[in-house]
Amino acid sequence: SVVDAANLAAHPNLLLAAKDLPTLQAESSRYPLFDRALTAAKNTVDEAMAAPVDVPFPKDPGGGYTHEQHKKNALLMYQAATLSAITGDKAYGDWAITLLKKYAELYPSVPLHPEHKHQAPGKLFWQVLNDAWWLVYVIQAYDALLPQMSQADQTLISQQLLLPHARFLSEGSAETFNKVHNHGTWAAAAVGMTGLVLNEDHLVNIALRGLDGSGASGFLAQLDQLFSPDGYYTEGPYYQRYALLPFVVFARALERNKPELGIFDYRDGIVLKAIYAAIQLSNGGLFFPLNDAIKDKGLDTVEMVFGVDVAYGLTGDKDLLAIAEYQQQVTLNGDGLAVARDLHQLQGAPSFSFGSKLFRDGPAGDQGGVAILRSGAATVVFKAASQGMGHGHFDRLGWIYYDGANEIVSDYGASRYLNVEPKRGGIYLPENDTWAKQTVAHNALVRNEESQFAGDVKAASKNNPQVTRFTQGDGWQLVSALEPNAYPGTEFDRTFVLLDKVGTEAPLVIDLLRVRADEAANFDLPFYYQGQLMFHTGKARLALENLKPLGKSNGYQHLWNKGELVTEKNSVQVSWLQRNRFYTLTQWMPEKSRIALTELGANDPEFNLRREAGLVVRYGKTKQATFVSALESHGEYNGVREYTLAPRGVISDIRYTAVGDYSLVNITLKSGQAYSVAIAHTAQNGEHRVDTADGAITWTGDVAVVQVAGNKNP
Amino acid sequence: SVVDAANLAAHPNLLLAAKDLPTLQAESSRYPLFDRALTAAKNTVDEAMAAPVDVPFPKDPGGGYTHEQHKKNALLMYQAATLSAITGDKAYGDWAITLLKKYAELYPSVPLHPEHKHQAPGKLFWQVLNDAWWLVYVIQAYDALLPQMSQADQTLISQQLLLPHARFLSEGSAETFNKVHNHGTWAAAAVGMTGLVLNEDHLVNIALRGLDGSGASGFLAQLDQLFSPDGYYTEGPYYQRYALLPFVVFARALERNKPELGIFDYRDGIVLKAIYAAIQLSNGGLFFPLNDAIKDKGLDTVEMVFGVDVAYGLTGDKDLLAIAEYQQQVTLNGDGLAVARDLHQLQGAPSFSFGSKLFRDGPAGDQGGVAILRSGAATVVFKAASQGMGHGHFDRLGWIYYDGANEIVSDYGASRYLNVEPKRGGIYLPENDTWAKQTVAHNALVRNEESQFAGDVKAASKNNPQVTRFTQGDGWQLVSALEPNAYPGTEFDRTFVLLDKVGTEAPLVIDLLRVRADEAANFDLPFYYQGQLMFHTGKARLALENLKPLGKSNGYQHLWNKGELVTEKNSVQVSWLQRNRFYTLTQWMPEKSRIALTELGANDPEFNLRREAGLVVRYGKTKQATFVSALESHGEYNGVREYTLAPRGVISDIRYTAVGDYSLVNITLKSGQAYSVAIAHTAQNGEHRVDTADGAITWTGDVAVVQVAGNKNP
Ligand SMILES: [Zn+2]
Ligand SMILES: [Zn+2]
Repeated sequence: SVVDAANLAAHPNLLLAAKDLPTLQAESSRYPLFDRALTAAKNTVDEAMAAPVDVPFPKDPGGGYTHEQHKKNALLMYQAATLSAITGDKAYGDWAITLLKKYAELYPSVPLHPEHKHQAPGKLFWQVLNDAWWLVYVIQAYDALLPQMSQADQTLISQQLLLPHARFLSEGSAETFNKVHNHGTWAAAAVGMTGLVLNEDHLVNIALRGLDGSGASGFLAQLDQLFSPDGYYTEGPYYQRYALLPFVVFARALERNKPELGIFDYRDGIVLKAIYAAIQLSNGGLFFPLNDAIKDKGLDTVEMVFGVDVAYGLTGDKDLLAIAEYQQQVTLNGDGLAVARDLHQLQGAPSFSFGSKLFRDGPAGDQGGVAILRSGAATVVFKAASQGMGHGHFDRLGWIYYDGANEIVSDYGASRYLNVEPKRGGIYLPENDTWAKQTVAHNALVRNEESQFAGDVKAASKNNPQVTRFTQGDGWQLVSALEPNAYPGTEFDRTFVLLDKVGTEAPLVIDLLRVRADEAANFDLPFYYQGQLMFHTGKARLALENLKPLGKSNGYQHLWNKGELVTEKNSVQVSWLQRNRFYTLTQWMPEKSRIALTELGANDPEFNLRREAGLVVRYGKTKQATFVSALESHGEYNGVREYTLAPRGVISDIRYTAVGDYSLVNITLKSGQAYSVAIAHTAQNGEHRVDTADGAITWTGDVAVVQVAGNKNP
Repeated sequence: SVVDAANLAAHPNLLLAAKDLPTLQAESSRYPLFDRALTAAKNTVDEAMAAPVDVPFPKDPGGGYTHEQHKKNALLMYQAATLSAITGDKAYGDWAITLLKKYAELYPSVPLHPEHKHQAPGKLFWQVLNDAWWLVYVIQAYDALLPQMSQADQTLISQQLLLPHARFLSEGSAETFNKVHNHGTWAAAAVGMTGLVLNEDHLVNIALRGLDGSGASGFLAQLDQLFSPDGYYTEGPYYQRYALLPFVVFARALERNKPELGIFDYRDGIVLKAIYAAIQLSNGGLFFPLNDAIKDKGLDTVEMVFGVDVAYGLTGDKDLLAIAEYQQQVTLNGDGLAVARDLHQLQGAPSFSFGSKLFRDGPAGDQGGVAILRSGAATVVFKAASQGMGHGHFDRLGWIYYDGANEIVSDYGASRYLNVEPKRGGIYLPENDTWAKQTVAHNALVRNEESQFAGDVKAASKNNPQVTRFTQGDGWQLVSALEPNAYPGTEFDRTFVLLDKVGTEAPLVIDLLRVRADEAANFDLPFYYQGQLMFHTGKARLALENLKPLGKSNGYQHLWNKGELVTEKNSVQVSWLQRNRFYTLTQWMPEKSRIALTELGANDPEFNLRREAGLVVRYGKTKQATFVSALESHGEYNGVREYTLAPRGVISDIRYTAVGDYSLVNITLKSGQAYSVAIAHTAQNGEHRVDTADGAITWTGDVAVVQVAGNKNP
């Protein structure tokens, strides 16, 4: 399997391609982003080359010394090999070959990692996942080094390191390798790329079609099953990003080496769809923090840099340059050079078209989905997706709201300090289960203070919500979904309408949740905001001198009960200031409803939880409840220039009426204007008529927005 | 007093000068900052000119409609007049003259403002302070308009508006005008500049020397008394910024019109010293939030833009260009043009020399002071200043710590949402008194849960702390102060040492507070941090399910008591993560001491308080207590690149020993290294010797830092 001399000229040919080397060499310092990436790599490798080579015997678990060193070495070999190819300075390559040989000498003596515990064990690392990650970078290093590597070194490295390691990742770790799961994708990419470089077709075949060659597992099965037809990855955007890298890298390598496969056309272009989906599933550069998500992860992660560069290399879509500009990073190959060059030469600022999209979930697209409604600076994210496996949260029909880059109605994300050793070594914390995954930790419906599906992943994975509508009209966008399984004998639907033309400064969000139960139960709908409360209406009964938890379990034990708001009027307003802008929630308050004011942090012995504020809209024992609210974004607080604009919203009141299967939301503004928003829940495409105190409203389609009082041009 | 034709050519001659107009006209679009400022002014004025002129009869209080409109009009006239002079487009000037004439017609009929209540009343505004502010801008507008103004309009405007208003601000508001206080400075600047423009020497004289001409009040007395010899304004940096503007503007006008006064040399250059002091009293662009301070105010405020431009016009000090670059703004005059031009033409990035400084307080510099110790990214701010009048906080010998631009050991600032109407109209909130001013709200010593001086401003104003030392040596900087009056029969001193060479990643802060009382009392030393707790040592007894306030009054009623840390070892560590960096406090814990863990927010019925975390180091009944701690800044959390560096500090333990009037702080590192820091509290310049278990330490001067164990080059 050693590459013969005739073929050497064809290497490298994975992400870095021999055919691009002359251009890369000529233009490497011409475009700032590429020049900077090259200089950064040089600085890193120069520093490493000044120190002794360190290839320790594997011993430590994640975060430990040998773990970090092997990670570092993989990236160093990859960078040094790339530098050697691009700059022509062979000293880089020679150093990388020295390191590779050290690994080749070490590898035969390395047993299963001593710290593997309950994980699928690796050899260099405690988890085989890390070993696959390692080979993805190292095979690229080897490929780039081939033109300067002696036959003897090729033999040593391929026979003692690459092939045995690829065999270990495949036959030797069959369970992981055959998994249709991102761990399997890393293994497939590592093994498949090794096969491409070493001309080992068998490795490429098992990478594509699984160990038995049937196609029931392997890369193609993963492409079929791990993404929905819209490119949504079922675990959510945080893991989508993570999963993306081996897909992108292996696909790019296959495109170069097996063009006849047409991998980027596979399943209607699923790899590119997945890259674009990851971008759309973000705001202000950060991914929507659905499921187990670390909230500081976003578009500038290395995975997205690879994704954007590869996508740009294939499509030349100028929209992607806006993401590259945000990343301020490119990969060191022909795709990265194209991005750096075109961004440098672009006239005007690039802009990515973030839009309203429904990302269906499930391989066939029939397992619910995540809907995004966008208008101006407003973004509504509605989660009606399936459970998303073990990292999924029990948050069906929950939502997030962004104003520009700022998360206003917020999702807690995961309870974890990634890589922070003092926080239990950086793993998921106990509060990830006791709080972050629970329904009450989300802007989602809770019944009897219990989580959806009683917090049971298996039960939750058996079915999914249904996205019943995703439509738009003149000045409105709507999404509805139905969840009949989360609670026994209980069905609820939720509708978000984003309205452009009802006299509010920014698009207005109408949130309408209807629940019907066989037996009377308590229903809670939490609402989490950040920032400082400015004012509220209604009567407050506050716990000023004594805080107790809101409940006993299922996440409630972590919420301090700061008191309650009630009213005898139609609605209550709560307003807060976040990052120099004001937000006002107007909540319809029928009889028997009340709002609990909460703060996170009870029963938190390790100080793992963030101190975040929330409201919980509550209904006592009832078979039927409807939660209706309107959310305004308004004004500006400018402390530097000493002015404040519109610290109160324009809405004075909202009212809700159900007429058959129609919903009527009346919005009264302080100006005297009033609007009726009429929603048809069934037979949406027919003609509709609702008789109201303000007269009859007739319309076709899902929604009618009618001004019912006040001057039309105030 | 109408300006005669021969003199017209000499106008404008306040901040904008006739002699600079040709250059301003020629170069106005050449330098981005000036061009942008001019365009912004044009846009503002163009928009106003498209609408009807609106000069309402004064009626509303601060924040109300007529109040805001008169503010707006003053700035519009000022901008329009400036545009007319700089661009030569006389339409701007004609519009401004129309507005001025409206005011001239209105003014004679305007009585004292109906909403004046307890304030010194104005006419256009509820407070005479606002009326003075108004004239400061309007006289500049008039001055710039003179070259295009008819004789008749000059007469009308000067006789019916400017002179009567200047008389109202002086004779008509004698108490304010004669105040040695920033309200008096606004009045002096308004009246004096009016005198300069209208050739009314009498007005200039009373502005400089008070109504009786004695010099007991007026601008010169204000320059003598309101700043310390180091340029420190006794109310603290937030109000220093506010007070600065009339000083800077009037001084610049005097320099032009009465050069023989040598106003910028007055009192050894006090005006420039005050501008530089305001800059030094900031970090990351924000002022140290001492006393009643809004925390988002900083170097980019309009007052500092005027200050920096005028100072640059006078000195050409290139350091100031770094501040101008941060401001991204210049004033529309010759000084502003010079800043914009020189910044544009500068090679390389400008940099202001932020340094370690002692700013003495009091007219004679003998009323304590604010000390700043800086080393690398570390900044210690030590407040040992006098009370600072009505906006002062009871925080003697309190401190703040910054790591780069981030406030790590934090000061609450004021409890106020400036200009935010829903928060009680934007005034100081009740919690400013019940919390923000109280000693326990600060990193300052509390005795028996009472505030310093029992929270009585008059008592606190009678005396001041003494800064006993401000020195530095090889690898160390030290400041000490003594406070003998804040609590009856109690004296305490506090010393901060910033150490560069004790094996920590960043400079180490040693905090040493010693208290001696005639009678046994409880002593508390709070410590407020932001960010998330990562770990602590010691034994925790936590209130996980029931929070109660830490105390009953003096601010304690606002602190939730989250539990207690105790230990049988020498010290306890508490570590937290703030903005991607870790901080570890190692607190010496002798017998009888314990640490309360707190969170702000109890007894806060209007949700006015921010939710901030704190520690309170507590000693039970004792006549003598010593608080000793070491604060490390270390490591990095990088969520995007998925790495974490040094999430724990290098210190394992600290111990304290008093030997006579020497203090010995022993710092033991996890590496096995150990350092002794020996501090001589008296006879600092003599020779010192302390015998310790590790041998004798001999030194001269304030501090010795000696390595007592471990490899010197680990
Ligand atoms: Zn979640
Ligand atoms: Zn304070």
